[in-house]
Amino acid sequence: MSRKLRMGMVGGGPGGFIGNIHRKAAMLTGEIELACGAFSSRREKSGEMGRHLYLEPGRVYDSYVQMIEHEAVLPIPERVDFVSIVTPNYLHYPVAKYALEKGFPVICDKPLTIRYEESRELAAVAEAKSLPFAVTYVYSGYPMVKEARTRVLRGDLGKIRKVIATYTQGGLSKLLEAEKQKKPLWRLDPVKGGKAGSIGDIGTHAEHIVRYITGLAINEVYADLHITIAGRKIFDDGDILVHLDNGANGVISLSQVASGEKNNLAVAVYGERGSLEWKQQEPNSLVLKWGDRPSEQLKTGLNSPAVESDTLAATILPAGHPEGFIEAFSNIYRGFVCTVRRGLLKEHVNCSVPDYPEINDGVAGMAFIEAALQSTEAKKWIKVKA
Amino acid sequence: MSRKLRMGMVGGGPGGFIGNIHRKAAMLTGEIELACGAFSSRREKSGEMGRHLYLEPGRVYDSYVQMIEHEAVLPIPERVDFVSIVTPNYLHYPVAKYALEKGFPVICDKPLTIRYEESRELAAVAEAKSLPFAVTYVYSGYPMVKEARTRVLRGDLGKIRKVIATYTQGGLSKLLEAEKQKKPLWRLDPVKGGKAGSIGDIGTHAEHIVRYITGLAINEVYADLHITIAGRKIFDDGDILVHLDNGANGVISLSQVASGEKNNLAVAVYGERGSLEWKQQEPNSLVLKWGDRPSEQLKTGLNSPAVESDTLAATILPAGHPEGFIEAFSNIYRGFVCTVRRGLLKEHVNCSVPDYPEINDGVAGMAFIEAALQSTEAKKWIKVKA
Amino acid sequence: MSRKLRMGMVGGGPGGFIGNIHRKAAMLTGEIELACGAFSSRREKSGEMGRHLYLEPGRVYDSYVQMIEHEAVLPIPERVDFVSIVTPNYLHYPVAKYALEKGFPVICDKPLTIRYEESRELAAVAEAKSLPFAVTYVYSGYPMVKEARTRVLRGDLGKIRKVIATYTQGGLSKLLEAEKQKKPLWRLDPVKGGKAGSIGDIGTHAEHIVRYITGLAINEVYADLHITIAGRKIFDDGDILVHLDNGANGVISLSQVASGEKNNLAVAVYGERGSLEWKQQEPNSLVLKWGDRPSEQLKTGLNSPAVESDTLAATILPAGHPEGFIEAFSNIYRGFVCTVRRGLLKEHVNCSVPDYPEINDGVAGMAFIEAALQSTEAKKWIKVKA
Amino acid sequence: MSRKLRMGMVGGGPGGFIGNIHRKAAMLTGEIELACGAFSSRREKSGEMGRHLYLEPGRVYDSYVQMIEHEAVLPIPERVDFVSIVTPNYLHYPVAKYALEKGFPVICDKPLTIRYEESRELAAVAEAKSLPFAVTYVYSGYPMVKEARTRVLRGDLGKIRKVIATYTQGGLSKLLEAEKQKKPLWRLDPVKGGKAGSIGDIGTHAEHIVRYITGLAINEVYADLHITIAGRKIFDDGDILVHLDNGANGVISLSQVASGEKNNLAVAVYGERGSLEWKQQEPNSLVLKWGDRPSEQLKTGLNSPAVESDTLAATILPAGHPEGFIEAFSNIYRGFVCTVRRGLLKEHVNCSVPDYPEINDGVAGMAFIEAALQSTEAKKWIKVKA
Repeated sequence: MSRKLRMGMVGGGPGGFIGNIHRKAAMLTGEIELACGAFSSRREKSGEMGRHLYLEPGRVYDSYVQMIEHEAVLPIPERVDFVSIVTPNYLHYPVAKYALEKGFPVICDKPLTIRYEESRELAAVAEAKSLPFAVTYVYSGYPMVKEARTRVLRGDLGKIRKVIATYTQGGLSKLLEAEKQKKPLWRLDPVKGGKAGSIGDIGTHAEHIVRYITGLAINEVYADLHITIAGRKIFDDGDILVHLDNGANGVISLSQVASGEKNNLAVAVYGERGSLEWKQQEPNSLVLKWGDRPSEQLKTGLNSPAVESDTLAATILPAGHPEGFIEAFSNIYRGFVCTVRRGLLKEHVNCSVPDYPEINDGVAGMAFIEAALQSTEAKKWIKVKA
Repeated sequence: MSRKLRMGMVGGGPGGFIGNIHRKAAMLTGEIELACGAFSSRREKSGEMGRHLYLEPGRVYDSYVQMIEHEAVLPIPERVDFVSIVTPNYLHYPVAKYALEKGFPVICDKPLTIRYEESRELAAVAEAKSLPFAVTYVYSGYPMVKEARTRVLRGDLGKIRKVIATYTQGGLSKLLEAEKQKKPLWRLDPVKGGKAGSIGDIGTHAEHIVRYITGLAINEVYADLHITIAGRKIFDDGDILVHLDNGANGVISLSQVASGEKNNLAVAVYGERGSLEWKQQEPNSLVLKWGDRPSEQLKTGLNSPAVESDTLAATILPAGHPEGFIEAFSNIYRGFVCTVRRGLLKEHVNCSVPDYPEINDGVAGMAFIEAALQSTEAKKWIKVKA
Repeated sequence: MSRKLRMGMVGGGPGGFIGNIHRKAAMLTGEIELACGAFSSRREKSGEMGRHLYLEPGRVYDSYVQMIEHEAVLPIPERVDFVSIVTPNYLHYPVAKYALEKGFPVICDKPLTIRYEESRELAAVAEAKSLPFAVTYVYSGYPMVKEARTRVLRGDLGKIRKVIATYTQGGLSKLLEAEKQKKPLWRLDPVKGGKAGSIGDIGTHAEHIVRYITGLAINEVYADLHITIAGRKIFDDGDILVHLDNGANGVISLSQVASGEKNNLAVAVYGERGSLEWKQQEPNSLVLKWGDRPSEQLKTGLNSPAVESDTLAATILPAGHPEGFIEAFSNIYRGFVCTVRRGLLKEHVNCSVPDYPEINDGVAGMAFIEAALQSTEAKKWIKVKA
Repeated sequence: MSRKLRMGMVGGGPGGFIGNIHRKAAMLTGEIELACGAFSSRREKSGEMGRHLYLEPGRVYDSYVQMIEHEAVLPIPERVDFVSIVTPNYLHYPVAKYALEKGFPVICDKPLTIRYEESRELAAVAEAKSLPFAVTYVYSGYPMVKEARTRVLRGDLGKIRKVIATYTQGGLSKLLEAEKQKKPLWRLDPVKGGKAGSIGDIGTHAEHIVRYITGLAINEVYADLHITIAGRKIFDDGDILVHLDNGANGVISLSQVASGEKNNLAVAVYGERGSLEWKQQEPNSLVLKWGDRPSEQLKTGLNSPAVESDTLAATILPAGHPEGFIEAFSNIYRGFVCTVRRGLLKEHVNCSVPDYPEINDGVAGMAFIEAALQSTEAKKWIKVKA
């Protein structure tokens, strides 16, 4: 008889945002139970979180090392099936590496690492061990983003000519670094979050969605990154010209100092026969603009007309019933868990969500970040490593 | 030590829509585990669903009677804490009554019953037993609907003058009754779903949201209900004039034969100082239109400016990260479960979501349906029973 | 050689709104010159307006009687070709009647008259004299409203089942009657504007657009009109159930006490194969929602794909270049002027805008008003006179 | 006694788009009459247009030279007060120069010239002659663009940090150059329209609106211009990084090969306290997004709350009544004509629209084009000439 998969979480302690999302996304699949966690490097915080989550006290750990070591020697019917990593960025690399080495599949938040080389190393280990590795580029989990990809890849728009992706937030509008806050500001610390700052935090989302929808690689970038606020140590804004590998051009413009903006990610893709537009704040719609007929608005929904099969597979509800960020996140987990289930449990299951961002996507994200940093310094076009 | 609450479900077998939503909504709270279910009146269907949900075979029942009887005699550390009812409408009454009589709190889909008298009887039993009883008017679980209510109740708009609620769907555009479908058509059977048809299915949602946002009762209605499609036995469309108890007037217009519409619920409330507008298809926004200053658009989000505390309590994500239908549904469960937890487990917990639709809301919904049916027949204004 | 037509205006003095619109709409046709006017019943006001409009002093009159008499005896190469009436409502009847009797075609603002009988009388005179008579139901001049009509009439939506028209404004939110204002409040005076108040002011627009788009007559109404503000003498709000002559039902809901609303007219038409939606605040779009394929958004524009010929004829600009209220108004003038040109000047011209609201539309509007008033008093369905 | 001003037009023959707009915009002011024109370099075309416009045959000229010479010697009560130039780009320079030299104020379409030096020369002549010279950057005529400017200049958003302007059209999606068309393709001819192509056609609009709203100069650009379609001789697409003179950064992205797009101009300006967003396709709204309070939506309209005086001055209609492209265009004429009236007729008039784009704006546009062309070739940041 089949069973739910057991998840172990590293990071996601009290007050954190992304750990809570990962847990809700995992629960929403109906395929996962949270079995253990090392939620904080502070013992009492990890314990507090464990109680809040109704976990057995014996499965709440003080550190990721303790968790992975302990779980690795548990009998198979008890031990976790995979590890979810939701720590600050600089810990992704050591935690993921250790988990892989001990044989656990990994699902990890983005950006994959702090440095490009680390990401390459993780990819090598995952490949050597033949272990699934997901990177939670959540926006590719939205049904309408999948629909956009299907439409572009099958040629509805014709050859892609141009992309414009904008991603603006206002969260770093003030010099939070100067405020005494309870909330740890690791994102603003170049050591813990990376010098790339907003480029890693939101820029890689924009980069991934461009690659995901178009199926094209970004060949080279000309980046104009900025530290807008005096006293800040990471880039908080940037405009990046891109050349795609089919000859298309475009721009990714992003900011976390755009006061008043709330996670405003939008992407437009222009082709020779038509264009498409998707906005994360209204994620259940996809607008298709045609040169020779009226614009169409596709709507998410199981019974929505003319929506493609991969989109429907990533959809829970009938048309007109909005799905949101957690549902998109859950789709990443659904795809990953299915792969894990096939590999570990040798189950013959159909994966309802066939694709999810894999470690190579995480590596590509790091290559993009690296190229953007170099271009800003050199004031030249820089090739993105393949 | 605290624990998750155990839920038993009646209804929600394979292929059903609403059972799946209830389960996902419950899981999303992080406070509930599905412990048992009588998912179908057909044994093999119930068993299939139980396996799909990874339930213990011994807790998958063949009938609601069997489930309630068996669970009622289980030792307290095992038995379910409450019953969730997601059956066709005509079964709400017997299942809820039996569950209440055996001492289980109930959360039930809407409309509460087929007949008004049944709803009164359930209310009497629930009161006599002092048991919590939630009715899943899901739209009141959306953060921005809560915000709308708070704004109106504290007087931001001044005295309410008018409401316009429209709710259009296209699902019944064709005479599905004539088609041989796998999907059971209980909604189209006046015995199983109620003669009121669309008035019960979507009209009561519109009625509840009007009452919820304004805090006003509907005093009387003039209804013009229609059976649009020849051969149909239930009302599939209606326009209902309403008079509220503060003297305001308005209209509820609804249809399930509006071909092309996808769960398009919209409500506008007009007051002496301003108006507000909420649309279910873009649920994370609330538009406030003022007589003397620019319109405002409020956005859902933990860090969204100027959003009220009850709204924030019903919010999971930061601003700009859309929440949807399941999250709203989950808020009904969050409120209900907190009440159950306080009552049954005697826990001193703060209910993050303070309010949920209770049995009196379900009764009011049935009174509205009854009045609309009578008005249509009599072609007169009919008082809605208090 | 051809020439511009000469227009004489009655009403539209300093500070007035609608006179200015009529003049700009007329100028925008490129087919009309303002030749004379009786802009106000106060001589100095009329003169002031004449100077502001750079008119010859000898063609600025003190009264409509003086203007019509004087113009009627001018030699043909000088005298006006038609009369535009933009006075308060109660003057439409005497001015129009006198102009018709003296042989002038008339273009008149709505509602056509104060009383239904007056409108019938005007229709009789116009017919007897074979004179063109336009009523400026401006919204039917919008290209996308014409497109909606074409689509419905040729059957794209299938049989029409339901209409919902809402028209909300906030302009009468306060008891302006109690304020000493410079601006004359004739609209609030039942003698000058009509007891129907908002029903005549905006309700007839909603009524006309429903009839125009669907091509169906309103057979009967059940009206619930209100005087919201104590001390007011005209209806300022109303909800009106309607039955159309093909069996469709629907509602027209309107208010001028909806504080915060700004001329918010929206109409939705539901058919057996699809629905359409048009909103006056974004008039260059028409949304078509289909049961079996994605929604379409049509855009105004000379080169817009899939837009019909009558729509294109009423369009000035390429797609993406917004047209507004004055352009719509101008289309009424374009159609009317073409008819006048054919009749009076015997020119063989193609009318670029083939249709405009005629006197029968004005009469239908008055019949609707009368039925709504009677229904409110009698609390019964009232047949609308044909 | 005052009078309308007399306009002479060069260009705008049969089938042309922009000449028709200029004429309608001029008429809409109520301050201008079209007195003469040289509508085409082909005599019969010019005559045909003159008849269509009901002009006196003697005032319809065969060439701009003939027109300017002839008008210059007419008695003052007859001769034109200013010249409107709506020819292909390459003729702007000689026509404007000749008109200025003969003493006529000029209103000219954009881009001002083909080469930057020509624009400087025109500016020198206009200054030497003290003649008003308007360049029809139409988008600055929209009321909500004026509102945006007022808000930014008075500091509502705080220091400006970033701008994103996108302008996409699909008109050049195909190689029209290869088609035999009736319509002359001067825009696609580098000699007649300029090698800059789309940069001159729509890029300068984006450039002007950025400068107009922010009040900031563009210091330097890094441009990545493209000829997307093989066989084309002008740039049809480009992404341009910009640095503003207060240290802000941003991007202007434009395309005329974005199939399906219809004149989709959008501009977003981000400041330290909030952001604003304006979209040309819905020009009557301006969205203000604040860091510390809900977003606001301002609406065009005489009685719209909280709209500033310069905005109101550029507004014709009450709120909720949409104004469009021609109304915006007309505002350019209103401002220009008022200046001409003051200068030529020595009238003491209040200019209802106080500002319009002047020749220096046209020169700045040419400097921007020149810098973008140079940057594309040199692959370096290029300073924009002041």
